[in-house]
Amino acid sequence: MPAFAARYNGITGSAIREIFKIIAQPGVISFAGGNPAAEALEDARIADLAREALSADGKRVLQYGGSEGWPQLKEEASRFLAERGVNAPPDALLPVSGTTQTIDLLCKALIDPGDTILVENPSFLGAFQTMRLYQARLSPIETDGQGAIPGALEEAIRQTHPKLVYLIPTFQNPTGVTMPVERRKAIAELAERYDIYILEDDPYRDLRYSGAELPPIHSFDRSGRVLYLASFSKLISPGLRVGVVTAPPELLRKLVIGKQSTDLHTDQLSQAIVARYLAHGYLPGHLADIRALYGERLERMLAGLDRIGLERTAPEGGLFVWCSLPEGGDARALLERAVSRKVAFVPGAHFYCDGGHNETLRLNFSNSAPDAIDRGLAALAEVI
Amino acid sequence: MPAFAARYNGITGSAIREIFKIIAQPGVISFAGGNPAAEALEDARIADLAREALSADGKRVLQYGGSEGWPQLKEEASRFLAERGVNAPPDALLPVSGTTQTIDLLCKALIDPGDTILVENPSFLGAFQTMRLYQARLSPIETDGQGAIPGALEEAIRQTHPKLVYLIPTFQNPTGVTMPVERRKAIAELAERYDIYILEDDPYRDLRYSGAELPPIHSFDRSGRVLYLASFSKLISPGLRVGVVTAPPELLRKLVIGKQSTDLHTDQLSQAIVARYLAHGYLPGHLADIRALYGERLERMLAGLDRIGLERTAPEGGLFVWCSLPEGGDARALLERAVSRKVAFVPGAHFYCDGGHNETLRLNFSNSAPDAIDRGLAALAEVI
Repeated sequence: MPAFAARYNGITGSAIREIFKIIAQPGVISFAGGNPAAEALEDARIADLAREALSADGKRVLQYGGSEGWPQLKEEASRFLAERGVNAPPDALLPVSGTTQTIDLLCKALIDPGDTILVENPSFLGAFQTMRLYQARLSPIETDGQGAIPGALEEAIRQTHPKLVYLIPTFQNPTGVTMPVERRKAIAELAERYDIYILEDDPYRDLRYSGAELPPIHSFDRSGRVLYLASFSKLISPGLRVGVVTAPPELLRKLVIGKQSTDLHTDQLSQAIVARYLAHGYLPGHLADIRALYGERLERMLAGLDRIGLERTAPEGGLFVWCSLPEGGDARALLERAVSRKVAFVPGAHFYCDGGHNETLRLNFSNSAPDAIDRGLAALAEVI
Repeated sequence: MPAFAARYNGITGSAIREIFKIIAQPGVISFAGGNPAAEALEDARIADLAREALSADGKRVLQYGGSEGWPQLKEEASRFLAERGVNAPPDALLPVSGTTQTIDLLCKALIDPGDTILVENPSFLGAFQTMRLYQARLSPIETDGQGAIPGALEEAIRQTHPKLVYLIPTFQNPTGVTMPVERRKAIAELAERYDIYILEDDPYRDLRYSGAELPPIHSFDRSGRVLYLASFSKLISPGLRVGVVTAPPELLRKLVIGKQSTDLHTDQLSQAIVARYLAHGYLPGHLADIRALYGERLERMLAGLDRIGLERTAPEGGLFVWCSLPEGGDARALLERAVSRKVAFVPGAHFYCDGGHNETLRLNFSNSAPDAIDRGLAALAEVI
């Protein structure tokens, strides 16, 4: 057999994607994954929008398009971003096939083997695998109950000279924690002072169930070093694979060349559907619906966890709650017992770039009805 | 500004994609690109299929899916491939976001910086850019009017120990040339003898306007070293970005991990649309229509070129005719003059991995009506 590339050494595939195979079995209550609720997926509306896009503009939708993305999506996304304080004209945006592709394209543009990327610890494990396939060295940023600590980030920047800092400041994956405004300002200043790119990955921001909105790190950026990534996966549909990222011109050009070479352009039917979804003003009403739906599920999960007595975070939004087992607990062993009771979650160790923390686990609440949350937590309590 | 990755050194973006910006201007007759005709893009049928997929299966289409691809597409594609002698069960297939992504994932799996990929000379320039972003060394295979020469390929394999051989044996891009059956057999044997992977890129096979079908190289493969890549871009719609590639299990696993890390999965609405398109049996009728449409355009272009007296290939199918200017001609200079007459094409030098051949040019005929072909060639004749 011919030899594979060195970048695959030690890469065995995403733990979450393997757990997905367990949860595909009938009758399993899944606190794994980060799936929207089935009720939140508007199949009839999406079919109407597909019809509309193909009637109005079918020959262009179905033809080859530009790697720079569907113009209407860029215009609508620019307005969508401006409402949250992210000022980016359509030409400063690149439509992408989701968050994972954005990280892939950024690594392609920035990472030579051995270069450092700083990541919150814990952070999104899918990002780790993408980064490791570019042979990046992942280095942890110390975090607390308010997210990444600016002083610790500055120290890590000085020590490691990173090519990229990856942050999820709002309803973080996996912890659900949100970074306060002072830290956001301080981190935007660090990007400027040390002339490094920060990717602000913000897919959960609109899923807020309590508390007040906070300005993105990007809104404090004066140097063009903070990239803002919005995904429509959690808001409209992950199956359509559409997001947008901002970047300064010199980096955007590299991302567009990378996009040309990676998949030419994102599916235009999906880009056109999302553009029309935004243009029709459907998002505010839909967000009100899913905030009510998910907010109830979050409350139910937090109450259930408190009954069990598990240590946990207190997210005001997003899709995840982060828990710790009593001292000496092992979430991987717990998962095996839980699966035998038809309950699944993701052991927290996968989210640490340097391993360990076997006592932690991540629970998703968006994709289970309140009664299923009660039953799943009861089953979990029995096997803990 | 932070430094970009070394892989971008010397990469300036695809020449073809830049020419696309010229041809987007109104009134330009484009012999550049490889676009299907607008008449071949079935907007109403695709809208019906989108509705059908979302009615029958909307919650699954719009949810996260497996990196391994949409099961119904894999089943339909397996049957589609079997009809041409490519035997691959659904589990041996990976749905991909087009040819470019397949080359990207293969490079990710196989290429360390400095590794060699053998390519026909000339060959598809988009593939070159993707390969170069993995810092592959592209090495030419000598070709003649029947495509890659097996003896020359064997010699190149011995000398360069390539990690991959990239071939378009049927209606090649850019030449339109088709490799005869003896060469196909011989090349399948070389893959086995030297234990190297060959990517058989076959997007044009179904666009045959005269002559008899030939078995794919893959149909002679006994060693699992020949990968077969089919794209629905030229047959159904490039805007949907859907293709499928076969691979032996050990390589398929690496491609799936690469897919997880690159974009998680291909857009599921498009995968479901293509699956239903095939399941309904729409393809044979549609192919009959577009063969008639494109066959007439090819004849018109060949007749026009003969009137001008340009040396040219004699394709029996596909999308391209390959021409040579009289000695000393320079197709890049010609393009500038042609654009001033509102005619565009792609200078042939871009398709040579080692440059040169300034006298060559590639002409596309599928995307211009017969009258436009006559007018475009007349304008071209004036500036030659």
